[in-house]
Amino acid sequence: MSTAESTVRPVLIAGEWRQAKYEQTFKATDPNKNTLLPTEFPVSLWEDCDAALEAASDAASKLRQLPADKIADFLECYADRIEAAKDALVEAAFSETGLARSPRLADVELPRTSNQLRAAAQACRTGNWAMATFDTKAGIRSCYEALGPVCIFGPNNFPFAFGSVSGGDFAAAIAAGNPVIGKANSSHPETTYLLAREAAEAAKETGLPAATVQLLYRTSHAEGERMVADSRVGATGYTGSRNAGLKLKAAADQAGKPIYLELSSVNPVVMTSAALSERCDEIANEFITSVLMGTGQFCTNPGLVILQKSDISDAFVKTVTEKFSEAAPGTLLSPAVAKSLASSVQQLCDLGATLLTGGGNPESDRCALANTLMMTTAAAFLDDPTGFQTEAFGNAALIVIADDVPQMCVAISHLEGNLTGCIYSATDGSDDDACQALTAELAPKVGRLLNDKMPTGVAVSPAMNHGGPYPATGHPGFTAVGVPASLIRFGKLTSYDNVRPHRLPALLGDQNPTGQTWRLIDGSWTCADVGS
Amino acid sequence: MSTAESTVRPVLIAGEWRQAKYEQTFKATDPNKNTLLPTEFPVSLWEDCDAALEAASDAASKLRQLPADKIADFLECYADRIEAAKDALVEAAFSETGLARSPRLADVELPRTSNQLRAAAQACRTGNWAMATFDTKAGIRSCYEALGPVCIFGPNNFPFAFGSVSGGDFAAAIAAGNPVIGKANSSHPETTYLLAREAAEAAKETGLPAATVQLLYRTSHAEGERMVADSRVGATGYTGSRNAGLKLKAAADQAGKPIYLELSSVNPVVMTSAALSERCDEIANEFITSVLMGTGQFCTNPGLVILQKSDISDAFVKTVTEKFSEAAPGTLLSPAVAKSLASSVQQLCDLGATLLTGGGNPESDRCALANTLMMTTAAAFLDDPTGFQTEAFGNAALIVIADDVPQMCVAISHLEGNLTGCIYSATDGSDDDACQALTAELAPKVGRLLNDKMPTGVAVSPAMNHGGPYPATGHPGFTAVGVPASLIRFGKLTSYDNVRPHRLPALLGDQNPTGQTWRLIDGSWTCADVGS
Repeated sequence: MSTAESTVRPVLIAGEWRQAKYEQTFKATDPNKNTLLPTEFPVSLWEDCDAALEAASDAASKLRQLPADKIADFLECYADRIEAAKDALVEAAFSETGLARSPRLADVELPRTSNQLRAAAQACRTGNWAMATFDTKAGIRSCYEALGPVCIFGPNNFPFAFGSVSGGDFAAAIAAGNPVIGKANSSHPETTYLLAREAAEAAKETGLPAATVQLLYRTSHAEGERMVADSRVGATGYTGSRNAGLKLKAAADQAGKPIYLELSSVNPVVMTSAALSERCDEIANEFITSVLMGTGQFCTNPGLVILQKSDISDAFVKTVTEKFSEAAPGTLLSPAVAKSLASSVQQLCDLGATLLTGGGNPESDRCALANTLMMTTAAAFLDDPTGFQTEAFGNAALIVIADDVPQMCVAISHLEGNLTGCIYSATDGSDDDACQALTAELAPKVGRLLNDKMPTGVAVSPAMNHGGPYPATGHPGFTAVGVPASLIRFGKLTSYDNVRPHRLPALLGDQNPTGQTWRLIDGSWTCADVGS
Repeated sequence: MSTAESTVRPVLIAGEWRQAKYEQTFKATDPNKNTLLPTEFPVSLWEDCDAALEAASDAASKLRQLPADKIADFLECYADRIEAAKDALVEAAFSETGLARSPRLADVELPRTSNQLRAAAQACRTGNWAMATFDTKAGIRSCYEALGPVCIFGPNNFPFAFGSVSGGDFAAAIAAGNPVIGKANSSHPETTYLLAREAAEAAKETGLPAATVQLLYRTSHAEGERMVADSRVGATGYTGSRNAGLKLKAAADQAGKPIYLELSSVNPVVMTSAALSERCDEIANEFITSVLMGTGQFCTNPGLVILQKSDISDAFVKTVTEKFSEAAPGTLLSPAVAKSLASSVQQLCDLGATLLTGGGNPESDRCALANTLMMTTAAAFLDDPTGFQTEAFGNAALIVIADDVPQMCVAISHLEGNLTGCIYSATDGSDDDACQALTAELAPKVGRLLNDKMPTGVAVSPAMNHGGPYPATGHPGFTAVGVPASLIRFGKLTSYDNVRPHRLPALLGDQNPTGQTWRLIDGSWTCADVGS
């Protein structure tokens, strides 16, 4: 790295911090001040992409030969290093995202990130993600294996936990045995640079191939599309806007390359009148906390509420409107987010939504918009369900008021695929029939169904599904959060038919490689050896 | 059904045999006589597709409410009915495909088909396919669930076992809880009609929704593309030509609808000189049996052999050439297959492959081409690896002769994704170093790696992978054969977060629903109840 020669941050290719091949540079913005930060980052030309792909291809072959323990060691070493570098990471992320240093960045997101890496390490060590399956009679054994170099495009809203060289996709791709080419999110390149430094050091320290982790900051859209379709790529993970994501998807699909997308979601919350009658204030408070948390910039932010018209729903709307007006609006991640939020709100109002509070233009001296609540009728919603499902990413929500439960069901049946869907109902079960009808419509539309709980907490749990039908994601069968299930996305299923024992992967040997790996042997899951 | 009004076969929509909405009809050919069969089949207009989609949508909702046992009952009833209708089915399939009545159709493919349905029924009954996962501490439970109506486009080469209303995709889609709209393969519509009759009766007998199984015979390409992209569709399964499959894929991809494809594969077989020195005749016989079986019309037909130049490989080639010339060529499935085979052979010869035996024009009084063996050098192959991987579907193979093991490795590294790849090596392990190098190149390219065994047997085993990297299929993580893994393709992952116990699916209740369902509870696979 030669900062003497240039103030432009180097890219990480083949284990070296190199000056990028670039013609343009960019800078991030401090959203709390709405001013550009000083550091320049290169917009890489194809030459950088090509070099990274070539190095990743080589690293992929080398990683295939390494024992899983070595990869797990790397993930754990990296987790430790992230914790040791906490202060600098939090400071950089605070400057670039405006997210609170504490508790958000230092005490919530950073520990989540290192723990995610450790959980992935554990899945890698045991191989439990790989679904080792044995048919001893037929002499066939199968498991998931490393797929090849993974490109990761991280989102703006979680600089650590979904970061392209530190987050859930990264942890999953590496734990499945693949090298990663990270494309930093343009709103927090310095944070990503600092993370990549730790990752590169961890790779060195634990003896992993030099190109296990590589970093570019930005490319043109065309080069991004070329990259995800490149023959050397195994798969791509993308979290971000629907527009950019669908362009990458089209390119990857045409080349037959798997791409896992997390695009957008309005995360409908359905509340029965019986639930509101029972605990209106409590639910209103839960909702307000959830929808304004992180200035509403969560993938699972509850942006759409469906209620039945009644005095109690009027009261709910009144309470939420008042609290939205009273609460100080948080800082948004970037000028682009603020602009897009204001524009989405305007779009919804243009369709006929009533602005109950908020809206207007972003603040000028920081990235922020007034907390915004809108309302419409189910009848209006049903006139243009696509338009009314425009995601207003940030501290805004739309309430849809239906005449009755059947109309609520019809509105739900017109929802697009979403990450989550919630139903709040009475604790005494008096509205169980309504709930059954609402659930029958809602469940097929969402990746995670909740009861009496807001969707913003996404636990790193083996039972978590952070996924859902299109256009929330690109495929309804995969989760981006949760170990070991999230690793499967970056695996290739391989069957070994009559393959000689000494040529089988360790996971498929007669002996259980760790003594604690779950394997499906002749129809039974067991940690025992074959034939024992 | 009113055959009095029309001799055109009716379509099966919403449980009724209706006259199709059509403008054109088609007939199948008897490939043993190269003459058209008498029955006419309609090319359905969009009106039929739309009606089928609407009925399937309704059936999907109803199926979601049914206990898994009911669906399993249907699959078993249908399996019994297929066996009872064996004579008529075999006769129809023989007329339409030219495949031998016995053993092929009656004693191999038909029992495989009914057993596949029974295996799927068992997976449905236990729910073992659904990967029920519990995080009791976090209160989250997840499993795969029915995804929605599945369109199935069956191939020409297995009228029963891969048939659109009877085969592996069908069994998997139904067992996962989805209704199926089958599109018959145009080369055996009468066989598919007879199967659908049994399926419809079985659905009636076991009380399944009327539209659980529906059948169209053919649509225009445009309507097919419209169908797989329709918002009412859950997913599509397609087995057939690469060209038609990629068009459907593009349409489905753009709509964000999962599509599982099995397109084409040359199934490379690599033989070391040591293996041939040890058992040349034995391997030659295995190869000839495998490559000419079913007149070479298997997805896993070994169409590409990679050898190292030596006296023994010359001997191998000589033996195979002689036996190819001597063996009577089998009947091909249709005039289109015969024409396409002759044209692919010509294409390979035009690229410079030497025709050792066979080639020429198809026979005129039946669908057949002389058994065809071609040869080229690895150097020539590497000049145009894409061209030389043209699939010659039928009784033909190409032998590639390399100078040495490193050149064999380079040739393998230029292979596209394939369903299978085989390595034959010496039993004494003297060529283990060569095998390691060859395997390192071959394994990432194939879904199933074999040793010392030809790829044509595709066991219905939990450890089978009948899949592979693009363009063998559309995604490297899924198998089309093998229960329960093949069911996952037609499932949607759903997480239940804090959902009240009485609203959970039976699979996710505290009590194990069958006492023998494998569920992953807090990190351990068990058939026990939660908390026991």
